[in-house]
Amino acid sequence: MSGKIILDCDPGHDDAIAIILAYGSAEIDLLAITTVAGNQTLDKVTNNARAVSTVIGMTDTPIAAGSEKPLVQEIEVAGEIHGESGLDGPKLPKPTVPLSDVNAVDLIIETVMNNPSGTISLVATGSLTNVALAARKEPKIIKRVKEVVIMGGGYNTGNWSAVAEFNIITDPEAAHIVFNEDWKVTMVGLDLTHQALATQDVVTNIKSINTSTSNFIVELLEFFTDMYKQNQGFEAPPVHDPCTVAYLIDPSVVTTLSVPVDIELTGKLTRGMTVADFRYPIPKENNTFVATKLNHTKFWDLIYDALSNIG
Amino acid sequence: MSGKIILDCDPGHDDAIAIILAYGSAEIDLLAITTVAGNQTLDKVTNNARAVSTVIGMTDTPIAAGSEKPLVQEIEVAGEIHGESGLDGPKLPKPTVPLSDVNAVDLIIETVMNNPSGTISLVATGSLTNVALAARKEPKIIKRVKEVVIMGGGYNTGNWSAVAEFNIITDPEAAHIVFNEDWKVTMVGLDLTHQALATQDVVTNIKSINTSTSNFIVELLEFFTDMYKQNQGFEAPPVHDPCTVAYLIDPSVVTTLSVPVDIELTGKLTRGMTVADFRYPIPKENNTFVATKLNHTKFWDLIYDALSNIG
Amino acid sequence: MSGKIILDCDPGHDDAIAIILAYGSAEIDLLAITTVAGNQTLDKVTNNARAVSTVIGMTDTPIAAGSEKPLVQEIEVAGEIHGESGLDGPKLPKPTVPLSDVNAVDLIIETVMNNPSGTISLVATGSLTNVALAARKEPKIIKRVKEVVIMGGGYNTGNWSAVAEFNIITDPEAAHIVFNEDWKVTMVGLDLTHQALATQDVVTNIKSINTSTSNFIVELLEFFTDMYKQNQGFEAPPVHDPCTVAYLIDPSVVTTLSVPVDIELTGKLTRGMTVADFRYPIPKENNTFVATKLNHTKFWDLIYDALSNIG
Amino acid sequence: MSGKIILDCDPGHDDAIAIILAYGSAEIDLLAITTVAGNQTLDKVTNNARAVSTVIGMTDTPIAAGSEKPLVQEIEVAGEIHGESGLDGPKLPKPTVPLSDVNAVDLIIETVMNNPSGTISLVATGSLTNVALAARKEPKIIKRVKEVVIMGGGYNTGNWSAVAEFNIITDPEAAHIVFNEDWKVTMVGLDLTHQALATQDVVTNIKSINTSTSNFIVELLEFFTDMYKQNQGFEAPPVHDPCTVAYLIDPSVVTTLSVPVDIELTGKLTRGMTVADFRYPIPKENNTFVATKLNHTKFWDLIYDALSNIG
Repeated sequence: MSGKIILDCDPGHDDAIAIILAYGSAEIDLLAITTVAGNQTLDKVTNNARAVSTVIGMTDTPIAAGSEKPLVQEIEVAGEIHGESGLDGPKLPKPTVPLSDVNAVDLIIETVMNNPSGTISLVATGSLTNVALAARKEPKIIKRVKEVVIMGGGYNTGNWSAVAEFNIITDPEAAHIVFNEDWKVTMVGLDLTHQALATQDVVTNIKSINTSTSNFIVELLEFFTDMYKQNQGFEAPPVHDPCTVAYLIDPSVVTTLSVPVDIELTGKLTRGMTVADFRYPIPKENNTFVATKLNHTKFWDLIYDALSNIG
Repeated sequence: MSGKIILDCDPGHDDAIAIILAYGSAEIDLLAITTVAGNQTLDKVTNNARAVSTVIGMTDTPIAAGSEKPLVQEIEVAGEIHGESGLDGPKLPKPTVPLSDVNAVDLIIETVMNNPSGTISLVATGSLTNVALAARKEPKIIKRVKEVVIMGGGYNTGNWSAVAEFNIITDPEAAHIVFNEDWKVTMVGLDLTHQALATQDVVTNIKSINTSTSNFIVELLEFFTDMYKQNQGFEAPPVHDPCTVAYLIDPSVVTTLSVPVDIELTGKLTRGMTVADFRYPIPKENNTFVATKLNHTKFWDLIYDALSNIG
Repeated sequence: MSGKIILDCDPGHDDAIAIILAYGSAEIDLLAITTVAGNQTLDKVTNNARAVSTVIGMTDTPIAAGSEKPLVQEIEVAGEIHGESGLDGPKLPKPTVPLSDVNAVDLIIETVMNNPSGTISLVATGSLTNVALAARKEPKIIKRVKEVVIMGGGYNTGNWSAVAEFNIITDPEAAHIVFNEDWKVTMVGLDLTHQALATQDVVTNIKSINTSTSNFIVELLEFFTDMYKQNQGFEAPPVHDPCTVAYLIDPSVVTTLSVPVDIELTGKLTRGMTVADFRYPIPKENNTFVATKLNHTKFWDLIYDALSNIG
Repeated sequence: MSGKIILDCDPGHDDAIAIILAYGSAEIDLLAITTVAGNQTLDKVTNNARAVSTVIGMTDTPIAAGSEKPLVQEIEVAGEIHGESGLDGPKLPKPTVPLSDVNAVDLIIETVMNNPSGTISLVATGSLTNVALAARKEPKIIKRVKEVVIMGGGYNTGNWSAVAEFNIITDPEAAHIVFNEDWKVTMVGLDLTHQALATQDVVTNIKSINTSTSNFIVELLEFFTDMYKQNQGFEAPPVHDPCTVAYLIDPSVVTTLSVPVDIELTGKLTRGMTVADFRYPIPKENNTFVATKLNHTKFWDLIYDALSNIG
């Protein structure tokens, strides 16, 4: 049995790997890809989503472009991590898969409304602008979505400020909307994703698969390794986004904990922080979860399997 | 020659009069009415919009429901001013005009995109949630809208806090979006609308018109008079919303001034304030205007004329 | 009968005139001058206070230096209004009056504690750092001070931001302390002081007095006129600080209104705003007052009288 | 050789143990105790400081009362942790040691100014109001203090909000002042002090010392154990405050890390948070340190030794 997901993303190196993992996994039915400005501008990340789909031969999944900037603040991109194109490293093919003429917000809404209630998981690996707009434009989706799994935030770790993570701090109001609606939200934050390191062993393993897709990933990881070393002092880069998909394929890969999480909007030092309240006692009525521990072996095995499946 | 407008509103006593003024004026072509939660819940204000249309026999203007709550914060309604129904006072008819099956956000976008660029004025007399969502979902409307005229805010006057007005403080993030986009925004705020008092002379004049619509307005104003006396110490109630429409019918009715206006999102005492910067020198590149002075006689004459036209 | 005052100031052109008005007025007993960083650094404004005292021959009033920076934020001075020295224009004499070896905060406390309760008015014409520190270090002064009269803030006017005034925005936390203690605070803000213009007629009148002190003031006003013209577009400069002293000499010079005032600490656009709440009904228990209307003739007559008295 | 300290505190169960540790340790020369409202009102904590001194026979250390409320916000006490008296549990003796007639702020300033520069460590185990006032009233102390060691805050742990600790959240502005001055600040926060648990073994050990002081501590710990179990779900209570003194006696007891720390003043969810920035690279110019790891055995051995010394 497979889980249906919509993947809202801003590819981005690790977004690309999330797409590949979702597409290559038998347990996941990837219904739609929607894009949002973030790692790079909307035009670039949308092109990247289509380029990745072209590389891996995924022709049936609609790709729709969404928000070109955050709800309230100005746009900020992450060129120092993902390069000028948002997907620097490999030479990208000219996309041959089409762009949907539906807006991402509407594609999310239509997909949720046209599938049975409780069957669609929303996976967001970029800023939450599209998801927030969908929730506000059509509140009926809140009850129909099975769960929301986001890469973003962290409870003890920041990267774009001392205490905030890029996907959240680039649109805190959108995150506030998503975290405060009455659906299950699982935050796969930096505490978790900094465990998903693409070590040299991992890169060697992927290299040995030796398909066009695995070679594409290797080139992505080589660039990503350099950027994370230069900018954040990592020996091996954390591959954030596919952790969300891995969790949906096999929840035992990611340990989670029920804890209230809210988004700080007004702090001078803390705007965009995902404030998790671990104090005793955790309230029983709580629908936010944080990812705490990654099974590193299982995680990368899922990636290798997906690559083998894609061939 | 007539000006095409979309009226986004939350009827509301003065919203109702704005609808009537727009419908009854030969200079205005009312293309759509969209509703937003504010003076009362979305269900109630949408019903009120349809009830007003039914009273005045306006059957061709589509009415679409929009946002049931603000972008980020929780909903707050104004029952102490507009009563339990949002339009207390007259007995409301059961609406006979239909509700559009299009969302307000999409109706705004479609109307703007399907008319020639530069021909549509957006008039907003409630919280700016719908307008903000439309601007974010389809940024192309920004350049195509002729101008945005809002009832809300104030530069020296508050009502829902010491320095903020109801329509803005109930969705400051939406207001921030609207005031910071690259279109002309005219703020018809409390400084102006507190000049639009429905004095006893005005009520007497409307009473003397003696049509079903004028009698409906009289009943609205009698309730409104009581509420404003009790809650805000006014002798005669300020009829805020139609000032926007009056300005579009005849700009000489409302004096405006070019001054930068931005929305405070984070103040403890000032959240939702429309911060106007009157300091020397006013920048030349500025697309926000504030309304300063109402021609009281001309304003009410426009209302009387509209009532005569509706018959 | 004369009123005892402590003048806490940051001279500054208009502070200098406040000192002269207090010293020259028979109704005022100037017990102490304390200085605070503001218009210029603490060293400079303290030197200026002593220089002004030297010019006017005031040898018995102790002068004590206080805070060299605000409570929480970094120091910001107003060189573009008051020049490099804080008192540019006239050639300043080398001070011959001594500097107290007591800290300003302690001089305020001692003066209040050593005089009968209810006899001392605290006049503050700079940032409120010293007054706030005194109130926190010795809370007993709160009940003993007769009243606090400050030049600062405004209810409809800003100068250092769209809605905040220099003395308050340079130390909002200190202002918050002062405005929230249980003593009477009268805010002589920009709405009032922008009426105290040193027009050419005024300058001509002062010139005609032709004493060393009046000539000193003329030189101050000539520099001040230029600065206000260049920086804020004023034809004649507003002489803020002496309005406080004038109010204490003759309350009929300044009309005041009881209205709650609080200080915004956290707004992005509004930090340092003196938020006055004019909404109906004004609470009966209220100890903050705002100055609204200046009697321009009486005000300048008080200055002329003081100059004549000093000789 | 002994280290001279001033202990600014709000006893409080763990403050009392800090006093006892400082007094009983041969390595510490306790020059002054100053009190600040916090765990209870100023009157109560000052009485408690004198009562503890009376219990342990410490007659030469001056005790001075300081701030009765925070700089900006209203006072909040911790009755649910420390009881109605602030030191519930043991029967307190009527204090026989005198209260200094000097204000705490002045006692801090005088002690620092009258001792050789670089010899005095300031230890603060309550809100930082007194220390902040001293730093602002007499900035010369900044360069003369050897180091500031505070119990407060945390980098991954909160108790009075999700992310803030009691001593900091009760006066964030004071903390902001202290953390941003140019002196060495070591933050002994909850991450460290939650390791200083008074387990049953510890209590048994103290009981076996069987002096009046050790019995006093046992009674304190029994009450403290109950309160922490009820309110925060701890099996054994964390004895926060003496960790600061232990660190000064023997730095090897507490591992510290150089990391920038600043105080959030404006967050809705994060006000009072001690924001530590662990991101790569840690700046070389940095004078804030956080305590990370406690040597539990060494820590309690220091307490046992002090109790033996006091006898």
